[in-house]
Parts: sequence; structure tokens; C-alpha cells
Amino acid sequence: MIELDEQQRAAQAWFRSLRDSIWAMLEQLEDESTLPGSAGRFEKRVWQRTDHGGGDGGGGEMGIMTGRLFEKAGVNISTVYGQFNPDFAKQINGAAEDPRFFATGISLVIHPANPLVPAVHMNTRMLVTTKRWFGGGVDLNPALPDAAETATFHAAVKATCDRHNPEYYPAHSKWAEEYFWVPHRNRHRGVGGIFYDHLNSGDWAADFAYTQDVGRCFLETYPRLVREKMHRPFSEAERIAQLKYRGLYAEFNLVYDRGTTFGLKTGGNTDAILMSLPPLAIWE
Amino acid sequence: MIELDEQQRAAQAWFRSLRDSIWAMLEQLEDESTLPGSAGRFEKRVWQRTDHGGGDGGGGEMGIMTGRLFEKAGVNISTVYGQFNPDFAKQINGAAEDPRFFATGISLVIHPANPLVPAVHMNTRMLVTTKRWFGGGVDLNPALPDAAETATFHAAVKATCDRHNPEYYPAHSKWAEEYFWVPHRNRHRGVGGIFYDHLNSGDWAADFAYTQDVGRCFLETYPRLVREKMHRPFSEAERIAQLKYRGLYAEFNLVYDRGTTFGLKTGGNTDAILMSLPPLAIWE
Repeated sequence: MIELDEQQRAAQAWFRSLRDSIWAMLEQLEDESTLPGSAGRFEKRVWQRTDHGGGDGGGGEMGIMTGRLFEKAGVNISTVYGQFNPDFAKQINGAAEDPRFFATGISLVIHPANPLVPAVHMNTRMLVTTKRWFGGGVDLNPALPDAAETATFHAAVKATCDRHNPEYYPAHSKWAEEYFWVPHRNRHRGVGGIFYDHLNSGDWAADFAYTQDVGRCFLETYPRLVREKMHRPFSEAERIAQLKYRGLYAEFNLVYDRGTTFGLKTGGNTDAILMSLPPLAIWE
Repeated sequence: MIELDEQQRAAQAWFRSLRDSIWAMLEQLEDESTLPGSAGRFEKRVWQRTDHGGGDGGGGEMGIMTGRLFEKAGVNISTVYGQFNPDFAKQINGAAEDPRFFATGISLVIHPANPLVPAVHMNTRMLVTTKRWFGGGVDLNPALPDAAETATFHAAVKATCDRHNPEYYPAHSKWAEEYFWVPHRNRHRGVGGIFYDHLNSGDWAADFAYTQDVGRCFLETYPRLVREKMHRPFSEAERIAQLKYRGLYAEFNLVYDRGTTFGLKTGGNTDAILMSLPPLAIWE
């Protein structure tokens, strides 16, 4: 284990504590479900990374739950470090001069069983090269979009952003709109949210506070959306629409998502990277 | 419609006649199935392509069957032509000097319902730029590989290759072995077959004859493999193994397959390109 500085330790500790809260929140919702079967629980899988150079490269903890309310929920944390290989270093902010890097973060994808309950994705992270920044976002992925639900979600995200900087919501929601566009389907994945990267305002504590608040926003808002619909009956046609939407979701992640394609092609932890893929999907 | 030369007409006519034979063969197998439900039939969807420049760019015919034996079978033909956009032309054999191209071919993917019956992929095509060549291949994709079945398949493919050139089977089966490697899963998609591209021996008729024989090999061999196992009962665990294998199959196609990623990112016919994706897939 390398020695971390104070900011690295604080960020790492935050992502772990957020992970714990999210696991507890999702398990609580499993307990509240009246569906048949027992309430799901997270299963932890610890993995270690070998750096490019062969040495200690950090690692992570995956958390997968197969529940009754959540057909598949993956909530992972990781702290990885080492040296980028020289070719790759050129593409990374601040790594051309010095290939050493450090990254700590959380990522989650939740695929509910009920097609009326929206799927969701969140990821926040701190990166350190010769530069230092935060990135992340949260976006809602209903198979069957509902205007009121979408408005509730965006209002919560906007309120979070606005507490930090009035320019964040317009800029970061636009970034999500561009990022989650699926050209070959001529539509978006999901109904938006926020996406940001290379955030370094010059005030580390403020940027960290924003990133923490994005996590808290997810933690408070998602269970509200789930409780709104978790007991609603759904039709076979709605289930099929959900499984088709998941096909689109898998297409986006495998064809376009930068983290996924980059991770797979550069020897990342395959299981952790593909945690995002849906439990069951249909292509016509 | 542009005016085709004799070789282009001959190749196009062959792919169409092979398509007709394959549809008939697969529908015959649907008739032979004793599973509940009615025998599947191909549904034809005709599409037209607008070339880069805005004019007539050819088009194709998709054929999709949702059957009782074949959960999803897609057998498509297309003949497309026009001008590559300048950036892309540089990457294509013989197109740097002159961006005009012509391509005609057949592609198919079959996903049987019974996990003991192997899935299969075949694609053969003729390309014309300032150069002219054939490419294609056939590969077997059992969810539950069976050594005897794999041997039968490879023997049939080898016999086909050997009738044309003793170097084809070693070279083209090795090419398939390399092409269908999935690095992030540390395994292959499927149990191999052949893959070839840029085939121009200097004898067009011989290259065309080889490409035709690859099609005939599929037409004769696949129904033998299907009839061997189509009536065998299977377990829930085998079905799940199949759905997981299909996840890997989708990953390969969306992350690595050149035709798929190229097609999606350059405005190809999305439905025809994604015809290859499985009807239902699982990711743990």
C-alpha cells in the first residue's frame, strides 16, 4: 500500500462510508418489499490489482446483490494506483509528464425487477496525476419514463448542484445529455442527470463537498423514487419493454462508455467493469 | 441502381440464392421440430441505403425468424455501394486512391432455443474498391461445447478448404482463433471455424468458388449438427449456461467485432447490424 496524503485518505474514506450507506439503504428497501422470496443482501468480493510494473496497484471491493426488488444491484468501491503505460499516459490529464496516477471512487448500477421502478447509475471519483480532480455523475434509467418521476429526479439533482455553483446544473446536465446519446439508436440512454469530469475549481474542499453531495443526493432521492412504485403491479408487456431497454443499456456500455471500453481493453478488473450489465436483456 | 459488372452480378446472385436455400433449410428444421408452438417462418424486411453523398447507395434484405427450435435466426443479404468518406477510405484496402466501393454479401447468426444445439455465425462477401476481394468465414458457437460436435464441424470446414487450397484451413482457422479471442474474458467466443479477408489469389473464379463452398459447407453441416441434438431434453442449469454464454457473445460483438463497431459508428443499418445480438442474455 502506498502512503496517501490527507486529501486522498479523506476521499477514500468518504467513498467507503457512502458505499456502506448505500448498501444499507438498498438492503432496507429489500426488507420493505412484499414480493415473494427473501430480502436480498450484498455479497462482497475483494479484488487486488497488479500494476503495469508488476507491483502493488491497489484494488477494490465489489458488492453484488441479487434481490427480490432489485434484480441486480452492483455497488463497488476501488482505490487504484501505479503508473499508466506510456502510450496511455498521453491521453490522460496531467500524465504525459509523469505517468504515476492514483484514483479512488465509487460506482453503482441498479437494475430493479419491476419495470416501473427506474434503473439508476452513479459514479464519483477523485483522480490524481500531476493534476488532481473530481469526476462523476448520476443518471436515471427508467425503461418506461414517467415525466413526474423525471422531474423529481432532476429537481433533486439541480438543488444539489445549486448549493455549490449555479453553473453546475446547466453545465453538468448538458454534459450528461451529450454523453448518454446513443447515435445508432437515435435516442438517449436514460432520462439524464449530471456528468462531470476534470473538476478542479482551485478549491479542493469545495470540489470534494460537491462530489460528496452528489452521493448524498443519490442516497436520498433514489429510495423515494423506488418507494413510489415498488408495489405497483406491472404487465408482461412492461416487463418486455424493460428487457429491451436493458439491451440498449448494454449496447451503450459496451460500445460507447469510456470507462467500460477503456477498462476492458487495458486489462482492468472485468467483473467489476461489467457489473453494470443488466441481469437479463432482450434483443428482438 | 448502378450498373454491375459480370462478377458483381454473379456474386450478388449467389448470395441471394444461398440465402433462399438457408431460409428453406432452417424452416425445414422448424417443421421437423416437435416442440410446442408453430413452426417459425422468416419475415423479410427490405431496407435501402442512402450513400454518404446523398444518392442511391444500394440496400438489403433482412430475414428474421422467431421459431420454436430457433429462438432467433437472422439471415441477411445486402448489396451496397457509393463512396467512403475520405477519412474512412484511408483505412480500406485500395480505397485511398479512389473512395468508390461496392460490397455484396450474406451474413447470418442463429441462436437456437435448446442450449445443447450450437449457435452459429456465417458471413461471406465480395468487396470492390480499386481492388477486388472476398472475405468471410463460419464459426460454431455452442454454449456447451461438445468435443465430437466440434470435431465434426472442423472436419467439414477443413474438407471444404482442402478442396481449394491445402493452406486455407491452417491459415483461415488460425485467423478465426485470433479473431474470436475475448481478452477481457481470457477465452474465445465459440469453438472456432474459419475467418478470411482480402482473398485475391489472382484467380477470381477460384476465389468465388471457395466462397461459395464455405456457404455450401454451412448449408450441409449445420442441419446435421442441429438434428443430432434438437430433440434432447435439457436442464434449467444448461439453459442458464446458454444465457450467460450469450452475454459473452454480445460482449464480443459490441466491443470487438469490426463489422459491428464500424457499422454502428458510421451510420450503417442498425437493425441489420444488431441482428447478431442474442434474443435473451444474462449477466451475473
